[in-house]
Amino acid sequence: MAGRDAQAVELVSGRTRVLGIVGDPIEQVRSPEMFTAEFRRRGRDAVLVPIHVRPGDFDACLPGLLRIANLDGLIFTIPYKARAIGLADTLGPSAQIVGAINALARDGQGRWKAEIFDGIGCVEAFRRRGLSFARRRVLLLGAGGAGSAIAVAIASEHPRSLRIHDPDAARAAALVAKVRQVDARIDVETGEPLLADIDVLLNASPVGMLSEARTPIEVARLPRDLVVFDAVVSPERTPLLALAEGCGCTTIYGREMMRGQIDAMVDFFSYAAPGQSRA
Amino acid sequence: MAGRDAQAVELVSGRTRVLGIVGDPIEQVRSPEMFTAEFRRRGRDAVLVPIHVRPGDFDACLPGLLRIANLDGLIFTIPYKARAIGLADTLGPSAQIVGAINALARDGQGRWKAEIFDGIGCVEAFRRRGLSFARRRVLLLGAGGAGSAIAVAIASEHPRSLRIHDPDAARAAALVAKVRQVDARIDVETGEPLLADIDVLLNASPVGMLSEARTPIEVARLPRDLVVFDAVVSPERTPLLALAEGCGCTTIYGREMMRGQIDAMVDFFSYAAPGQSRA
Repeated sequence: MAGRDAQAVELVSGRTRVLGIVGDPIEQVRSPEMFTAEFRRRGRDAVLVPIHVRPGDFDACLPGLLRIANLDGLIFTIPYKARAIGLADTLGPSAQIVGAINALARDGQGRWKAEIFDGIGCVEAFRRRGLSFARRRVLLLGAGGAGSAIAVAIASEHPRSLRIHDPDAARAAALVAKVRQVDARIDVETGEPLLADIDVLLNASPVGMLSEARTPIEVARLPRDLVVFDAVVSPERTPLLALAEGCGCTTIYGREMMRGQIDAMVDFFSYAAPGQSRA
Repeated sequence: MAGRDAQAVELVSGRTRVLGIVGDPIEQVRSPEMFTAEFRRRGRDAVLVPIHVRPGDFDACLPGLLRIANLDGLIFTIPYKARAIGLADTLGPSAQIVGAINALARDGQGRWKAEIFDGIGCVEAFRRRGLSFARRRVLLLGAGGAGSAIAVAIASEHPRSLRIHDPDAARAAALVAKVRQVDARIDVETGEPLLADIDVLLNASPVGMLSEARTPIEVARLPRDLVVFDAVVSPERTPLLALAEGCGCTTIYGREMMRGQIDAMVDFFSYAAPGQSRA
């Protein structure tokens, strides 16, 4: 019994700070293991748990959650990145342009500050592979929370062009306007999901998630020199990535984007609340 | 990185079920490590985290928390055992008499059922030491949530007498009435915290918790043949237990009560919600 306890103390105790990832569905998320491991690596006694909130419960649940005194932060995933913005007291620069957040943390005054790190993570994932968006022609599928954050982050990387496709044309057009807020001279437009004259294909739609066998673009083959990225993290090898690898394309996984943003987000979550020790 | 992840998966993932202990303060609680270890021992992918809710936030926070779809249960500790009863859809037999709960779990229909296990744990702790309440003269200090649960559980064990002291005399009198609901013939009364003609002293008041150096009964010495129990779990060796051991008394620790009730509570938390696998 003593041995079991000694092991368990390393997991969680009354002093452990709590964080969560809020989404629907939730079982596929990787943040609990990845962030908890990173907290431990930094010597921080904190655990990040999955929080499954159904859409009809969001408005009644989240304000209550934010009253937990030892809650240091929340991550938001599908379908809540846009909706969660209403919970924030202050917004970071990307969140202001994107109109969505994926991280909520306490600032030094105990208020909730928010930012979206998805785009930063995507750019960082490419950089770690020695790839750049500079002078590349990019097709982005999906103009929701993740897609918006990625588009805004890429806009600072000087792509040659950026085409945005979303089944909701108004949402795609709204994202084009946001991208122009970052760089008014950028070549950005809405468009069909066609691969002619495209160097980089980015999927930020939920198509291919979990057991869905579809690809987000209806083609039998992909050009061999295309770079293909998929923001979906579960399964790790999505139908799109499997197709791309079968065609000899360079592929970048959703998990790589997540790694790219973990460091920045853990820093974001590390501000001490009033009266809270940083230890 | 792979090695760190492999270790982290054992901690928590998107599939991990979540439970919590709600209290104020929260840092001293032992439930997170003890219950999480017991879940793991039973092969159940679940974690129990500390949830610090300040009294002014309780009513706004808890209804929101109960809407989390992957929340399997909550434990309530000081000062919420009586207040939390309003969250339950159905009450177990002890909770009905005591008017307080320490555990809330989903039943087979997804409603919240509640029970109080503190008393069961105290009786079980004595039993594991080969001690019984039968024909013993018992003095109980504290008629709050924990004290009430202990008194109701002891009432079924045929003590010779039970005297209950609480600074709030009305609260002590109310508990006497509850004990008579269990056994109308029992010798139970409110009274002063005096040790004459007492075999067993039970502290269920918060006096001695954390760094408070006081004992809940103002005496310099205790009779050597007295059995002394303290429901306080942090510090493990309370000022009362330290005094008792200095006087040669048999002592039973709050942690032993907690162990006594863990098995019953983990069973209580193990009912599957609708559509949820028991695996």
